[in-house]
Amino acid sequence: MIEPPTSGLDDTVHQRHRLGILTIAAEAERVEFGYLKTLLSLTAGNLSRHVTVLEEAGLVEVEKGYDGRRPKTWVSVTAAGREALAAEMAALRALLDRHDQA
Amino acid sequence: MIEPPTSGLDDTVHQRHRLGILTIAAEAERVEFGYLKTLLSLTAGNLSRHVTVLEEAGLVEVEKGYDGRRPKTWVSVTAAGREALAAEMAALRALLDRHDQA
Repeated sequence: MIEPPTSGLDDTVHQRHRLGILTIAAEAERVEFGYLKTLLSLTAGNLSRHVTVLEEAGLVEVEKGYDGRRPKTWVSVTAAGREALAAEMAALRALLDRHDQA
Repeated sequence: MIEPPTSGLDDTVHQRHRLGILTIAAEAERVEFGYLKTLLSLTAGNLSRHVTVLEEAGLVEVEKGYDGRRPKTWVSVTAAGREALAAEMAALRALLDRHDQA
């Protein structure tokens, strides 16, 4: 039996928008909700839903606060989130290698 | 504005199981439904649903026939399917490069 090519992919991380959230958040200490929303062209509701999936999986932390008087929400990647993102990248690399060899 | 890291990914192809179906099917002239089902650990209903999404997008063709007396279904990748898979691989490579540089 051939190894299934996608066995290393976890839907929690692999889902396109969540992969975007994790990638962007991993590049900074924390990232602001409105910035993510604009960058990923998501509605607030859709982004909120994906952030909640990641938060419940322990991959991001959500912090609410103020920037002056304006309420803001920041998202940051946890250590587990960085590990999960690295595992996804390793699985994608294996998939690309398989594709290159075909 | 930074380029969103996942803008090149298309959910039709990126979804984990569909990426698996396309990858396996692209490696052979055609692949049998039961084989895909076992390899990807999917139920018949779930696999069927994903194959239908790919078929409706014109990325695979489905052929029904017999192997002796047993009814069989084969899935093959179309030219558009190969292009879509190549585009996904290019987008994943760009994502990996971004990750490596971070």
